This record gives sequence, C-alpha cells and structure tokens, in this order.
Amino acid sequence: MPKRPTPGPRDERGVMSARILAAAREGFAHEGWAGTTIRAVARAADVDPALIYHYYGSKEGLLDAATEPPARWLEAVAHTWRTPACELGEALLRLMLGAWADDEIGPVLRAVLLTAAHDQTTRERLRRIVEGSLMGAAQIGADDEDRRIRSGLIASQILGLAMTRYVWRVEPVASMSDDELVAAIAPNLQRYIDADLR
Amino acid sequence: MPKRPTPGPRDERGVMSARILAAAREGFAHEGWAGTTIRAVARAADVDPALIYHYYGSKEGLLDAATEPPARWLEAVAHTWRTPACELGEALLRLMLGAWADDEIGPVLRAVLLTAAHDQTTRERLRRIVEGSLMGAAQIGADDEDRRIRSGLIASQILGLAMTRYVWRVEPVASMSDDELVAAIAPNLQRYIDADLR
Repeated sequence: MPKRPTPGPRDERGVMSARILAAAREGFAHEGWAGTTIRAVARAADVDPALIYHYYGSKEGLLDAATEPPARWLEAVAHTWRTPACELGEALLRLMLGAWADDEIGPVLRAVLLTAAHDQTTRERLRRIVEGSLMGAAQIGADDEDRRIRSGLIASQILGLAMTRYVWRVEPVASMSDDELVAAIAPNLQRYIDADLR
Repeated sequence: MPKRPTPGPRDERGVMSARILAAAREGFAHEGWAGTTIRAVARAADVDPALIYHYYGSKEGLLDAATEPPARWLEAVAHTWRTPACELGEALLRLMLGAWADDEIGPVLRAVLLTAAHDQTTRERLRRIVEGSLMGAAQIGADDEDRRIRSGLIASQILGLAMTRYVWRVEPVASMSDDELVAAIAPNLQRYIDADLR
C-alpha cells in the first residue's frame, strides 16, 4: 500500500481541532447548548472564532464534532456485542469502564451525558448514542420489543453507574476498582440480558 | 390544640413561594448555578427580586430551598428503610417511582439531578441527598464499608433509572408501567441488598 501521511497530534489541524473540541465539550457540558457561544469556545481554545466556523461550519457542527464518539469506540462497541450472550454482562461493563478511563473517549462520553442533562436540544443526541451503542446492536431478547426493553434496562444501570462514579463522584462507588465493580454489577447486567424479567 | 391557620396554596406567601421555587428549579436545572440570577428567577415567577431576597436571603438560600426535599419525602424514605431486608429492593424502587410521579417531590428531585449534572457547587447537595436518602439510613451489609458499597450500588441503579426514564426519556424505559419496572429491576436491587457481591 502507498504510504500516506498519518494525521495525528503533530498535524497542525489535529492540534487545533483537539483544542477546539476540548473547549467545546467543557462549554456545552457546563453552560449547556444555549449558554455556549463560538466566541467563548474560541477564547477558551485560544484560536480565532473564524477558524471554528472554517472547521465546523456552525455551532450545530461544533456540537456534532464535540459529541461524536471516536470510530474506535464504535468498533469496540460492535465487537463487544459479538460476545457470547452468557458473558455479555461483564463484557459490556468492562467496555464502559475502559471507555471512561480512555483519554479520548472518556471526555466525549462525559460531554454527552452532561450536555444531555440540561438541554432538550442535545438530549436527542444522547438517545441516538444510547440506541447506537447499547441498544441498536443488541442480539438479545425473544423479539424486538423484548430486546429494546432489555437494552434499555442495561442502559439504566450502565448510565447510572457512569453518572454516580464519574460525574457525581459518589463514594465509595467512585473509588472502587474495576474488578470490584465487575463482581458487584456484571451479574445484574447479565440478568437483564438473559433472565425472565416478568 | 388551638387552631392555627394552615399554610397552604391559598396562603399568599405559600403561593408566592411556590411560584418562586418552581422558577428557581427551572433556572438552576437548565442554566446551572452560575447561569441563574435572582433577577431572572424573579422575572420568570413574576415577582419583585426584593421579595426573593426577603424570603430566601441570597442565591444560596434560594438554591437550598429549591432543592430541599419536602419533609414527607424524608419521612417516606425513613419509613421505607424499615421494610424487612428481603422486600427492600421492591420497596425502594416503588418509593422512587412514587416520588417522581408526585407533583411536589418530583420537581425537586429533577432539579437536584439536573443541577448537579453540570455544577460542581451543587453536586455536593446531590451527594448529601443520596447519602441521606439512599445510604445514611440503610440497615444492610455486614459492616459499615459493606453498607456503603451496597447503598452506592443501589443508588447507581435507582439514579440511572431516574435519568433514563424521567430526564433523558429513553424508550421503552420511559413508557414502561411501574409494575413492569418492578418486575424487571427490583430483583437487581435486592441482589445489591443481600447477595454476595465479591
């Protein structure tokens, strides 16, 4: 294959984008959709507002880019859903714990949860990510309705753990090790996957 | 006992307070602590800002009042924690479902969760409510550390369900009946109460 230049942190556009998106995530998460301006993001990222318009076109475009899960997260999600159903509870939980600990994926998930918490506009985006990551690919349940119920229940536990541990930092959940959390929580997720829920 | 005037919705201060607190909850939940001003709350409640200062003293006092769980919620919580341990999972879940459906308690819980989602300042308040409602009174676990872990896990599921169902409104969880949710989720809460989690 011909050698192509690798886009990466040393690439100037890469550096600028990373700075802009980090500032945008902070802004949307803490000030909400309405409270965040391109100008304020530009100031926080130390770039010209015109550059943000040049890269992302609009505030909508900036929000999309700031809350777009990285491709390797989507691949990891798809890979996890191919785990045999009897091990899926632990696999989903480890996927989530790994994602929040990841320097690139963690901040995106955080921005999505925090922004969705106070903005109707961006809540739709969270729903799509939940659908895509936790529900769309699910090969569980007796039929489509059952599959959607089970994956919604899985989402309620996984998102609740994410809020409790990473956003609200309620102790002792925030300090428990991954292995402790897996021992405590994975069997509950497993029940949502394959037990009779009626 | 001497008959005292009953404070209630027909009492003028009661009417004014209810309007101010409802506007404050909306403001804090959607604009956050920093983005909410007494002036904006006064405008939304159609009262003079001076009245808010007169009733609550400061923005801190207003936040405290707006996110203070009603006494009958605290009583209901204490009562629920006296349920025999073997029925506690269902009892806690029904307590939560009832609270969110309650015209007085639901908006307070919603304001606390939404405000805590994007403000460090108010996150402490959520932690206190979680501690007080879900953890402080818990008579579960082998020792204090075990009790705190179990109640933290219960909180992760209950708060996750609250966010998924009432705040983000992810379907089908948002539309499931109370009885369907109890059948699906109470056994998982029960496992956090009395199963071996290691």
